[in-house]
Amino acid sequence: MKKYNPQLNANGELHHLLSIEGLPRDILTHILNTAESFVTVAEREVKKVPLLRGKAIFNLFFENSTRTRTTFEIAAKRLSADVINLNIGSSSTSKGETLLDTVDNLSAMQADMFVVRHAQSGAAHLIAKHVAPHIHVVNAGDGRHAHPTQGLLDVFTIRRYKEDFTRLRVAIVGDILHSRVARSEIHALNVLGVPEIRVIAPKTLLPTNVEQMGVHVYHDMAQGLKDVDVVMMLRLQNERMRGALLPSAGEFFKYYGLTADKLAHARPDAIVMHPGPMNRGIEIDSGVADGRQSVILPQVTFGIAVRMAVMSILAGN
Amino acid sequence: MKKYNPQLNANGELHHLLSIEGLPRDILTHILNTAESFVTVAEREVKKVPLLRGKAIFNLFFENSTRTRTTFEIAAKRLSADVINLNIGSSSTSKGETLLDTVDNLSAMQADMFVVRHAQSGAAHLIAKHVAPHIHVVNAGDGRHAHPTQGLLDVFTIRRYKEDFTRLRVAIVGDILHSRVARSEIHALNVLGVPEIRVIAPKTLLPTNVEQMGVHVYHDMAQGLKDVDVVMMLRLQNERMRGALLPSAGEFFKYYGLTADKLAHARPDAIVMHPGPMNRGIEIDSGVADGRQSVILPQVTFGIAVRMAVMSILAGN
Amino acid sequence: MKKYNPQLNANGELHHLLSIEGLPRDILTHILNTAESFVTVAEREVKKVPLLRGKAIFNLFFENSTRTRTTFEIAAKRLSADVINLNIGSSSTSKGETLLDTVDNLSAMQADMFVVRHAQSGAAHLIAKHVAPHIHVVNAGDGRHAHPTQGLLDVFTIRRYKEDFTRLRVAIVGDILHSRVARSEIHALNVLGVPEIRVIAPKTLLPTNVEQMGVHVYHDMAQGLKDVDVVMMLRLQNERMRGALLPSAGEFFKYYGLTADKLAHARPDAIVMHPGPMNRGIEIDSGVADGRQSVILPQVTFGIAVRMAVMSILAGN
Repeated sequence: MKKYNPQLNANGELHHLLSIEGLPRDILTHILNTAESFVTVAEREVKKVPLLRGKAIFNLFFENSTRTRTTFEIAAKRLSADVINLNIGSSSTSKGETLLDTVDNLSAMQADMFVVRHAQSGAAHLIAKHVAPHIHVVNAGDGRHAHPTQGLLDVFTIRRYKEDFTRLRVAIVGDILHSRVARSEIHALNVLGVPEIRVIAPKTLLPTNVEQMGVHVYHDMAQGLKDVDVVMMLRLQNERMRGALLPSAGEFFKYYGLTADKLAHARPDAIVMHPGPMNRGIEIDSGVADGRQSVILPQVTFGIAVRMAVMSILAGN
Repeated sequence: MKKYNPQLNANGELHHLLSIEGLPRDILTHILNTAESFVTVAEREVKKVPLLRGKAIFNLFFENSTRTRTTFEIAAKRLSADVINLNIGSSSTSKGETLLDTVDNLSAMQADMFVVRHAQSGAAHLIAKHVAPHIHVVNAGDGRHAHPTQGLLDVFTIRRYKEDFTRLRVAIVGDILHSRVARSEIHALNVLGVPEIRVIAPKTLLPTNVEQMGVHVYHDMAQGLKDVDVVMMLRLQNERMRGALLPSAGEFFKYYGLTADKLAHARPDAIVMHPGPMNRGIEIDSGVADGRQSVILPQVTFGIAVRMAVMSILAGN
Repeated sequence: MKKYNPQLNANGELHHLLSIEGLPRDILTHILNTAESFVTVAEREVKKVPLLRGKAIFNLFFENSTRTRTTFEIAAKRLSADVINLNIGSSSTSKGETLLDTVDNLSAMQADMFVVRHAQSGAAHLIAKHVAPHIHVVNAGDGRHAHPTQGLLDVFTIRRYKEDFTRLRVAIVGDILHSRVARSEIHALNVLGVPEIRVIAPKTLLPTNVEQMGVHVYHDMAQGLKDVDVVMMLRLQNERMRGALLPSAGEFFKYYGLTADKLAHARPDAIVMHPGPMNRGIEIDSGVADGRQSVILPQVTFGIAVRMAVMSILAGN
C-alpha cells in the first residue's frame, strides 16, 4: 500500500509539487517526458500554447528572487495563463494579516495555482494543506527544505546528455548543508535509479547523517570527482563565506572550487552543472563555467520547459 | 432637476466611479446586476471575456496596496485588458513632476482608464476633472473620503444573502472616523433604501454629526447589534491602536471586538462582513471570522465581479 | 564602402537600436514611416496588432525609470508580445552575478529582445555584442551616451508638424553636457539633413568641442531662438541645480528658461518640445508648456508609435 503523499490526489496523480521526496518514478518520468514537448515550443516563432488560458497563477514570493520568479512567469505566460506577481514582503502580511489569511484571500479571487517561495521550510506544504481542492501549489523553494523544480530541471538536463540514469556516477559539490537544491537533486537522482551519488564538501558544510539520504561522502575533490559522469556544483551563499563554517572564500576555492585540473579527474565526457547565480572564482572557475563541458545555460532553458510541464500537468485545461 | 454629478455624462450614464454619494439607485442596481453575470465567468474553466480587449488600464497607486491593486488587476485581465501597474511613489512625481503632469503623460500614452489610489481625499476627483473625455477614472480609495468599489461589493454581498434591502437592519462597527470604507458603505446602503443603518463605536472614533449621514449611533455592542441582519466590521488601523484615541488594542477588543457572545445579540441568520485585512483578536475574534455566519471570503470573490462590472460599464467595447 | 556598424546585420538591416549615430538616413526614414502606421493603431477601439505574438521582451532596467519603462511596456503589449519587467538593481547582479551572466541567463530563457537602461555609457553596446544572433537589443538610455528612441520620437514629432527637414532651423536648449537626449537629437537631425542646428546653454553645460557635432553654439536665448522653427528644451537634472555648474535654479530660469517673451524670438509657428518630466518654472514656464505652440504631449503619444515601429522592425514575425 502506498504511503499517504500530500502531493498526490486520490487517484495517485500529481496535485501539488512540494518536494521530490516521495514522488513515484512514473510521475517524475511523466514530468520529464512532458517537458520534452515544451522544449520545442520554445523554439517556435510563436512560443505560446493555450493550455492554461484563463487560469490565474499567483507568484507568491515571500523571499525575493527575481530569477526564479521570472522563470515561472515566462513558463506561465507561454502556457497563456494570467500571471499575478506578489512580493508579499511589501503586502498584507506586513499589515498584520497571517500567511493563511493572505492565502485565503487570494484563493477567494479564484486563483488556480500558487507558486510559493518562502524562507521557512514547510511553508508550501502548509499552504497546500490549507487551500481548497481545486487549487494547486508549486514549491519554488522553502528554507533549506526543497526546490523541486530545480531538482527536476537538473535531472531533465542530465537525461538530455546522458541517456541512462542507471549507469551514472554523479557528484554534488559544495554547501550541501544549507542547500535545498542539493536535497531536491539527491531525491530526484535516487528516484530515477542513479546507482552512485556522491557529495563532496568540507565537514562543516555537510548535514549530520547525510549518508542516510543514499549518498557517499567525500572531502577531497580528486577522489570524489574520480570517473564521475556529472558534476553538480552548488552556489556558495555570501553569508557562508565569512563565518564560522569556512576559513575564507579563497580557501574554499582552493579546495572545492571547480577548476580544469580538478575536473580532469572526472570522465572526459562529464558534464558540469550549476543552479546559478554563479560566484565565478569561488565555487567555479570561469574557464570551466564557460567551457565545453558546461551545460549551465541549457539548464536555464530546460528549466522553462520543466516548469511549463509541471504547471500544465497540475492545472491544464 | 438633477444636481450636477461629475461621475455621470450628459446622458446620465456612469462615466467615472469616484464616490457612491450622489449616484442614483438605478446606476447602483445596474452595476450590481452586471456583476451578477461576472460571478459565473469566474466559475468557468476559462475565466476570461473579451470586453476590454486592447484597452489600456493604468493602476495608479500613489499609496501602496497590493491587495486592492491585485483585485483590480485580476478584474482587468479577466476582461482581457492590458494592465500597467504604476507604483507612483517611486516614479516621476519623485522627480518633481506634478500629479497632473503625470496624468497628462499617461493619458498621452492612450490610456483608457485610471484606477487611482491616493492618500489625499479628492485626488481621484481632481484627476477625473482633468482628463480628456474618453478617459475613465475609478477611485480605489482616496484619503478618508471614499472607496466606492468596496461599498459596492459590500452591498452586492448583502444582496446575495439578504434579498430585500428595504427590510434590513445593518450595523457598522469600529473606526468610523478614519474609514473611507464606512463612508462608502453608508452611502450605498442609503441609496438602496436600507431603513435602519447603525454605527457602533467609541465617541473618539466617530465623526462629528455622523447622524447627518442617516445613521443611528450606538456606543454599546449589545444594544447596537440587537436584531441586526448584517454586521459590517471595520479594520482598526495599527496607528490608531496606540494613540490618544484608544486606550489599547485589548481594551478595544473587550468592548467592540466581535465575539460569538456579542454576535448572539444579532438575528440568528445575521451575516458578518469585514473588508480585510483582518486583525484577528482585535476587531474580530477568530472563531467569528471563520464561523458559519462569516461571508468575509465571499466578499473578496464578489469584489472581483463588481470591479469587472464597473470597468466594463465604464469602458466596454 | 560602409563603415562597420554593430547595429546592422550583414544585409545592412537594423538588428539592434543602440544609437542614432551612424544610422543611414533610409533606416531612420523607414522607422518613421513604420511609426506612422502605428499612430492609427493607437486610435482604434482595439489597440492591438499581433506582430510580436509569442515573443518575449525583457525590460532590463538597471537604472529606474517608470516612465520610459512604461512606454516600452505599452508598445510591446500593443504588439501582443509577452513583457517581463526586471528591475535589476534588486536582482541577481546584487547577488554577485556579473552583467553578462545575467544577460546569458535571460537569453537562455529564450528572450527575443532586451530593452536596456543603464547608468553606464556603452552598456547596451556591450550586451548587443555579447548576445546570440537571434536576440535584439534596444538602448533605452545609457549614461550620457544615447537615448535613440527619444531622438527618433523627437524627429517623428517634428516631421508631423514641419514637413521638410531640409529647410528647418532647430534650437536645443539647456544642459547639453549631461544629456543623452541632446546627443541623440543632434545625430537624428543631422542624419535627416536639418541644415541649421543650434545649441543654447551656459558654457558650463556644454561639452568641449560641441561644434564638431555639427551645431552652432549660442549662450543667449534671444540670439539663439531667432527665427527657429523648433525649440527643443532639455530637462535640468536636480543634481545640477545646486552644484558648481550653475549658480541656482532661479538664475537658470532667468537666462535659459523658456518663457513667452523669449519664445517670441522664434518663428510665430515654431513648435516647443520637451522630453519630460518637466521642471515647470525652471527650464520652462508653465504658460509655454501648456501653450498653443507646445507639442510636448503629442511627443509622448508618438513615442509609443515609434517604439512599436522599432520593436516590430527588429523582431516582427
